[in-house]
Amino acid sequence: MTDSLMSVKGFQAAGIACGVKASGKKDLGVIFCPAGAVAAGMFTTNKITSAAVQVCQKHAASRRAFGLVVNAGNANACTGSQGQKDALAMCKQAASRFGVDPHEILIASTGIIGHKLPMPKIRAGIDAAVDALAVSTKAGNDFAHAIMTTDTKCKQAARTVKLHGTPVNLAGTVKGAGMIGPNMATTIAVLLTDAAITKPLLLKALRAAVGDSFNKLTVDGHQSTNDTALLLASGAAVNQPIRRADAAYAAFESALVDLCRDLARQMALDAEGATRMFTVTVRGAARKADAARAARAVADYDLVKCAVHGADPNWGRIICAVGSCGVKLDPARLSCRIGGVYVFRNGQPAKFDRAKVSRIIAAREHDILIDLGVGSESDYCYGCDLSRGYVRINADYHT
Amino acid sequence: MTDSLMSVKGFQAAGIACGVKASGKKDLGVIFCPAGAVAAGMFTTNKITSAAVQVCQKHAASRRAFGLVVNAGNANACTGSQGQKDALAMCKQAASRFGVDPHEILIASTGIIGHKLPMPKIRAGIDAAVDALAVSTKAGNDFAHAIMTTDTKCKQAARTVKLHGTPVNLAGTVKGAGMIGPNMATTIAVLLTDAAITKPLLLKALRAAVGDSFNKLTVDGHQSTNDTALLLASGAAVNQPIRRADAAYAAFESALVDLCRDLARQMALDAEGATRMFTVTVRGAARKADAARAARAVADYDLVKCAVHGADPNWGRIICAVGSCGVKLDPARLSCRIGGVYVFRNGQPAKFDRAKVSRIIAAREHDILIDLGVGSESDYCYGCDLSRGYVRINADYHT
Repeated sequence: MTDSLMSVKGFQAAGIACGVKASGKKDLGVIFCPAGAVAAGMFTTNKITSAAVQVCQKHAASRRAFGLVVNAGNANACTGSQGQKDALAMCKQAASRFGVDPHEILIASTGIIGHKLPMPKIRAGIDAAVDALAVSTKAGNDFAHAIMTTDTKCKQAARTVKLHGTPVNLAGTVKGAGMIGPNMATTIAVLLTDAAITKPLLLKALRAAVGDSFNKLTVDGHQSTNDTALLLASGAAVNQPIRRADAAYAAFESALVDLCRDLARQMALDAEGATRMFTVTVRGAARKADAARAARAVADYDLVKCAVHGADPNWGRIICAVGSCGVKLDPARLSCRIGGVYVFRNGQPAKFDRAKVSRIIAAREHDILIDLGVGSESDYCYGCDLSRGYVRINADYHT
Repeated sequence: MTDSLMSVKGFQAAGIACGVKASGKKDLGVIFCPAGAVAAGMFTTNKITSAAVQVCQKHAASRRAFGLVVNAGNANACTGSQGQKDALAMCKQAASRFGVDPHEILIASTGIIGHKLPMPKIRAGIDAAVDALAVSTKAGNDFAHAIMTTDTKCKQAARTVKLHGTPVNLAGTVKGAGMIGPNMATTIAVLLTDAAITKPLLLKALRAAVGDSFNKLTVDGHQSTNDTALLLASGAAVNQPIRRADAAYAAFESALVDLCRDLARQMALDAEGATRMFTVTVRGAARKADAARAARAVADYDLVKCAVHGADPNWGRIICAVGSCGVKLDPARLSCRIGGVYVFRNGQPAKFDRAKVSRIIAAREHDILIDLGVGSESDYCYGCDLSRGYVRINADYHT
């Protein structure tokens, strides 16, 4: 059950097709935690949020969560008061099947904005998914497939960490291929663990993990109305409960960060139209915020993304992006390396083997390293190339 | 001589091919003002500026300018101390031919970043261009063609305005198709007028015109290292000199704003890969800066640009862009119209004729109007669609 959601104890999963996606593919997933779970959620900071986000934000504050419902194909965003009712109705229905309170059910939606949910299909879908709940790799895969939109690959990852000698499992699935920019670079992330941990520490770990993974990824710099990351902890590992930010907590957080980074990289490689990814690291910054801003500016720069797509060592575009993003830098000490090779050093063009650097860029992943020459702070960002495929997916797709 | 640079009195122009562009197309232009001109310049605010920009910024401060030299195909940016020497050498050579001081010659370069100028070609080119100087529509066209890079069309515009009964001419040419985002959305703008006007008022008029035209245009949100707008006033119209910000000044400024808007729209329609343009107007904002930011956010949003390319009334992406750009708004009063048709009104999806709105978007130009619902300030931004052509031009192009 490697890399399966169901490698985590205490949960059941299902994913079915209820007809929201015109393709007939799976579009509704349910997770159930019979004994109840501690839950933590993080949500989009877009000022326009979907009804699902608004409802889930309230429910995530509950002491316990018994499950979650996710639908794909329709974001239930910009849908007014009807959208609110529909989101709540989804929670009520699952709660009724599980015999719990509606506020103990979490919810997420993803898909087209501005269309009302087809509730008869959704209602039938929730019933069918609850009926299909199981503990199996297949059930986890079904759930992971049900939350996909333009993703071409199902994204899952799992980790195990020993806390005071007890193995604790973490696993997650994420969907998102376009409209992805910090913060928070994912439409839906569902993360499960069987750790026993308090709610405040679970949220602390989630914040750290999202900050160092999904928030470091940009596909198009866009932030959706529906971004949601949920982390449920069943406690079924029966570890000595994590109640303080001690060494056991640190080990748990570290495993969660590692898990989410894995998922973020899977997203970068499956981004809309992407054929390759890259990591921009900026160092020598006066402030960490400058390093983060410059890294993101480069990763978001369409001309850099096009050059990566063409495997062209056009470093002038990288320098241009850095120079225009407003961070403090020293033009005479500014340097840039691609895959370890200096292309620009201390404000001067460097002599380098263009064919070699082109080969570096043409690989599945490469690194861009920039030194601003004014300090000792650093940060990074994941990006991907911009291809005709991105345009095809987003221009030919019709509402 | 309508819309020709040479409709303005007191200038001579030339444009020739000196071999910097591999295509053999014209790549070096010279403007000469035998009696001297008052000059004003505006430059990129990128922290990394080309050697040409650095030299031109100094020379634009001179009391008089006698001419300018522009080369295309090589930006002379990120070229270190040699770049500085080369830029100065270009001014010196033209100055020597005109019998003036080097600091009385302006300069601009555009093209690839990070390559040293091929000075033997440039030197021969300046001589050939000076030899070819003429007062003719053809000479103006030659100059306008010589500054083009990936532009597919030569962009010129001209205006005439009567000041105290005396006709005063203004004309300009602009190049720029990619790496275009405020501020300042042009690589090179060369504007000429035969008005008699003081240097401070000329700069004031240039700032107003650039602010309301090139600074309102975004193709890809990118700002180049070489952005330069130059305005030369020969005084050959022999109007009563403009010495104060009076009615005559206002009429002059208004004509210059109109001229630059014309050029900015020509740029939008000829943007790399663009097939159509649009104007985003944001009103109901608490602050003008909010309106400007939201308008630009929408015009820069790749998913909106793709939807425009596909003539898809996918207004959810517009709302998403507005919600994520950080401006104050009222979700319950937020509204959006495309070509006058409400697609989202007071926080609710509006019923509209999708085929009709799709036809509106498919036209050469259309308007997107957003009301934030929290104030009375407004601003606008020009944008264009994102096509496979943009990717082709910028990925297949190799350094």
